[in-house]
Amino acid sequence: MKVEAFAAPSARSALQPWSYDPAPLGPEDIEIRISHCGICHSDIHLIDDDWKVSRYPLVPGHEIVGHVASVGPAVRHLRIGDRVGVGWLRGACLNCEACRRGEENLCPNGQATCVGAHGGFAQRIRVDGRFAFPIPTALKSENAAPLLCGGITVYAPLVNFEVRPSHRVGVIGIGGLGHLALQFAAKWGCEVTAFSSSKNKESEARRFGASHFINSSDAHQVARAKSSLDFIISTVHVDLDWVAYMNCLRPNGTLCFVGVPTKPISVPAFQLIGGQKSIVGSSTGGRPRIAEMLEFAARHGIEAQTEVIPLSDVNQAVDRVRSNQARYRMVLEMPK
Amino acid sequence: MKVEAFAAPSARSALQPWSYDPAPLGPEDIEIRISHCGICHSDIHLIDDDWKVSRYPLVPGHEIVGHVASVGPAVRHLRIGDRVGVGWLRGACLNCEACRRGEENLCPNGQATCVGAHGGFAQRIRVDGRFAFPIPTALKSENAAPLLCGGITVYAPLVNFEVRPSHRVGVIGIGGLGHLALQFAAKWGCEVTAFSSSKNKESEARRFGASHFINSSDAHQVARAKSSLDFIISTVHVDLDWVAYMNCLRPNGTLCFVGVPTKPISVPAFQLIGGQKSIVGSSTGGRPRIAEMLEFAARHGIEAQTEVIPLSDVNQAVDRVRSNQARYRMVLEMPK
Repeated sequence: MKVEAFAAPSARSALQPWSYDPAPLGPEDIEIRISHCGICHSDIHLIDDDWKVSRYPLVPGHEIVGHVASVGPAVRHLRIGDRVGVGWLRGACLNCEACRRGEENLCPNGQATCVGAHGGFAQRIRVDGRFAFPIPTALKSENAAPLLCGGITVYAPLVNFEVRPSHRVGVIGIGGLGHLALQFAAKWGCEVTAFSSSKNKESEARRFGASHFINSSDAHQVARAKSSLDFIISTVHVDLDWVAYMNCLRPNGTLCFVGVPTKPISVPAFQLIGGQKSIVGSSTGGRPRIAEMLEFAARHGIEAQTEVIPLSDVNQAVDRVRSNQARYRMVLEMPK
Repeated sequence: MKVEAFAAPSARSALQPWSYDPAPLGPEDIEIRISHCGICHSDIHLIDDDWKVSRYPLVPGHEIVGHVASVGPAVRHLRIGDRVGVGWLRGACLNCEACRRGEENLCPNGQATCVGAHGGFAQRIRVDGRFAFPIPTALKSENAAPLLCGGITVYAPLVNFEVRPSHRVGVIGIGGLGHLALQFAAKWGCEVTAFSSSKNKESEARRFGASHFINSSDAHQVARAKSSLDFIISTVHVDLDWVAYMNCLRPNGTLCFVGVPTKPISVPAFQLIGGQKSIVGSSTGGRPRIAEMLEFAARHGIEAQTEVIPLSDVNQAVDRVRSNQARYRMVLEMPK
């Protein structure tokens, strides 16, 4: 059996139809018949070899939803026909300090779904079943797919950095990650402020849960938010005036990066010391956190707003992500 | 009654004998007959007007221990003769969000002991009794004085950033703050690593509780500590290779600044995101934390190693602090 996929033959090239022979199904593995796969900015970075870890032909895709088509002999928790999702991680050692406490995302030997293996821009995928998560029935597949990477990326910091419902949360950048961050923070019980350079996103940002909208291109508006927020999550990949955002934090406040600006974050130490503030980073989440996130999303009706495009039009979808046109997440639909 | 003190008549000048009329004793105030006062680097910054908040004549000193000589009519928790300490803060609003949860150090209207008021390089001081803390009998006054600022500065982060006894803690800079940080972290139950550019401090660092000593001038030694520490507290006022110290952190690790480097802290975002790491700052502590710190110090025999000098030799003592010669904290003793 061949797996029909789309692959980048080399760095920065358009994706082309391509097929491969999957590895034999290991005892813990499952095969998933993919129905949907979201497109994340990380997929673009992998296509472009920005991180120097890509191998070609490269099949991107790590926001996968589909149905279990076969299971290895050791798989007990999933059955053929179950609807499951797979995110950034397809494996980890499961024995190190991080793995033992359910932080597989911090495992030094963690394996990414489409780094050194073929991802979800395909009709099928074989992965370790321990890294596949049942999708709650309340969630539609096309809206759930982006939760597997985008969702967990913005949900995990709420837990890991102890954001409380009484807190005031800011979200910088209202795109694929940001529009989910607004929803999670609002349903978490927080008062939410959206920071965006796209004035035309205000009404949607408010619909996603923002109580306040600040035009991040207007330094005066940002300055007026001084000392108003307990937690700010930055989803952008550009360089902003981080000191201005530190000033938006209340004492004990935290500025959390999940997007990667191009230049180092540079902040005078007294900005940290005076108000006992923190600058932190977060990257996806471990297995317990992903399962919890999916349950929380189902309970509260949190879902990605998506543009669904057939797999055959993948290059058009990738271009929309590349140019930040997606409202708010591109999702590929596989042929039935 | 005049208060006999030593004051800086202007920025960067030597201290001179000087006396002043104290303010009337308010209902919540106490007067302390000072026996000892530590010299902190902040005192030097105030003498030199480095922070542009100094007013002259300036009486430094905010690591004060002495006995209560008189109490205002509203004071219930202290009596004449009690031995008490006063640290960086002499007042706060006691009504804001931070004050209400016992974080008076984060009160926007907090008042520092020797900013806009006269400090502890003096025979007496009048302060709000709510910012004076009984000194446990197990602690000697000369060794307890530096706990009131230096001690709380390095103790509070252990609590605030949730350092656990199972953690591995690094201390950068083995001076007035660092030698206390080693003791607190070791008695907290942690495995402790000292980073110092003074090779000759190794045996003392080990006596203070360090299990490991790393010559911070040797980049290779620092690099070998890769991924070994959960929490690093930096007490230095110089610019180090902070990325190298971020690399010393384990996943979820925290680099905490209590000293103020001259240049901004600059770290690539992926250094934070990959290992879910934090950069934080901390400044002294609130009233509950100070009381708890003193009790913990008494329980575990933690005390500052001091050089005690009569108040009349204050300039000599200040010079030793200025030139980083103190082993490890200069403490002024007042005439009986």
